[in-house]
Amino acid sequence: MQKDPDYYVQGVLDSNRLMLSRTITLIESSLPSHQEMAVTIIEKLLPHTGNAVRLGITGVPGAGKSTFIESFGTLLTNLGHRVAVLAIDPSSARSGGSVLGDKTRMLELSVNDRAFIRPSPSGGTLGGVARKTRETMLAGEAAGFDGVIIETVGVGQSETAVASMVDFFLVLMIAGAGDELQGIKKGILEVADTIVINKADGDNVVRAERARREYETALHILTPGSAHWSPQVLTCSALKKSGLTEIWETVNQHRAALEAAGELQSKRKKQALDWMYFLLEEGLRSWFFNHPDIQVRLPELQSAIDRQTVSPTSAAGQLLKILQQDR
Amino acid sequence: MQKDPDYYVQGVLDSNRLMLSRTITLIESSLPSHQEMAVTIIEKLLPHTGNAVRLGITGVPGAGKSTFIESFGTLLTNLGHRVAVLAIDPSSARSGGSVLGDKTRMLELSVNDRAFIRPSPSGGTLGGVARKTRETMLAGEAAGFDGVIIETVGVGQSETAVASMVDFFLVLMIAGAGDELQGIKKGILEVADTIVINKADGDNVVRAERARREYETALHILTPGSAHWSPQVLTCSALKKSGLTEIWETVNQHRAALEAAGELQSKRKKQALDWMYFLLEEGLRSWFFNHPDIQVRLPELQSAIDRQTVSPTSAAGQLLKILQQDR
Repeated sequence: MQKDPDYYVQGVLDSNRLMLSRTITLIESSLPSHQEMAVTIIEKLLPHTGNAVRLGITGVPGAGKSTFIESFGTLLTNLGHRVAVLAIDPSSARSGGSVLGDKTRMLELSVNDRAFIRPSPSGGTLGGVARKTRETMLAGEAAGFDGVIIETVGVGQSETAVASMVDFFLVLMIAGAGDELQGIKKGILEVADTIVINKADGDNVVRAERARREYETALHILTPGSAHWSPQVLTCSALKKSGLTEIWETVNQHRAALEAAGELQSKRKKQALDWMYFLLEEGLRSWFFNHPDIQVRLPELQSAIDRQTVSPTSAAGQLLKILQQDR
Repeated sequence: MQKDPDYYVQGVLDSNRLMLSRTITLIESSLPSHQEMAVTIIEKLLPHTGNAVRLGITGVPGAGKSTFIESFGTLLTNLGHRVAVLAIDPSSARSGGSVLGDKTRMLELSVNDRAFIRPSPSGGTLGGVARKTRETMLAGEAAGFDGVIIETVGVGQSETAVASMVDFFLVLMIAGAGDELQGIKKGILEVADTIVINKADGDNVVRAERARREYETALHILTPGSAHWSPQVLTCSALKKSGLTEIWETVNQHRAALEAAGELQSKRKKQALDWMYFLLEEGLRSWFFNHPDIQVRLPELQSAIDRQTVSPTSAAGQLLKILQQDR
């Protein structure tokens, strides 16, 4: 490893793809020396970040996320943008490698020199995986990518993690009976800035339009996340490349509305603070639940609660006593 | 204070209202000796709890919660039930006394000797307020109340706290244009077992029915919390006392469905465990953020994040170092 952080910083600022990749490798490394170096690099890059449109994308299984990102990303590069495609998949450690962001899923984008595809970092907690993706996004912005697409497979709380680092959160759905929609997780529709019904092509156009109206009714009832934006519901066909321009226009309208209200900068500042709190709480929980006394007492108290011989309050009180011992 | 916990335990089991009130006073006390006594009493009462239908109720401001609880509670007592009405309002400390559960709001129930109304405990964190209500519910069950209604004013995360201690969560709404509905918080509709549109009387019947259909569409799209229950949308008029029997029938259908699937007991056991984790995490956070080093460093790092001179990851890492020092 090159010891001078400025070596990486300059390489990234020069839009050198190899140097960007090496920087991301440091960000993703679990070696303490690499992590320290990555922190230094990121802090030097911070003033050069923030110039991208940050898009988060999630969707039910079968909604066609890969095809959508392929078609939508290509639209953006055709419009002159440089697009980084990243992913958060905390399950990728278990499954032995991420399928998300896999270049074979996005044949066109992967050979597009205005695009940069990086699979989900593997291993560790959601916080760890999300931290790496968040910092990869910042490095990409410093390298001149002005569009960042972060996709999530929807495992654990990964949508919430993605929503907490993007400007615009898009939920990809398909038309279908109730049962086909059960894959969507609680709370996701409420953080959506736009819902897109994909596969609105051929025989499916009428069903997609009906689904669009149903989602519109649902969104009318849910509380929007911003006072300056009412979530939209659109249809598209990623396969036929129809409806994509309208989605990009919606992203730009959203951005204009938030910028006019001064909300974009305040949203990003709040996201950075929220992110620190998220890492703090994750670190705190991990420290506590790995404490040797807790590892012994917790299972005992859990079964006592199950047998109704100990109340939850009493159990929590007993476990929290270790905090006093440690002081 | 009587020193023998069995004095209180026996009094509660004898359905002695005065002894129940005294026990609740111990539960609500902040004196360590009272809290210890309360833990002992609750653990002795635990085997006698669980025989009530536990209902949680929330609603937008102006939905008519008080009138609804008054009319619905009276229906239950007329059917022969004994009903305890409790409340969780973590804001009651700030506002100098709870308006929730205030007996003047429920004139009929407050003089009904089959009903027991207890206002929200005041003071402290949401966890503290919710703990007291949860244990008051258990004491009430041990005293023979077979219906418990817990209302929430919807401040902070109080709906989630209520939903985590009841069998059935009812969200009270009114018909209205989008703007009138903005009071409902994110995620609430997704934990609702039933949505009731109140004030379906006079000129308002048609609008209430239209709202009912809209909510039905929305619920069709959201993922239900239980595999054995599809949330219902009903209308009622608490003022005219219409539609209330149908709501009670729905509560019973829900209970029968969950019991048939073995889900009621497992739901309650899970709630007890979740509750312990909630108290643990709250205690952990409170300990950490009150640490003298954190109180000094946190504001400094927050403004550094705001100025983009420190990354959230680096800030969290610096703050978490105190956990190592303490070991």
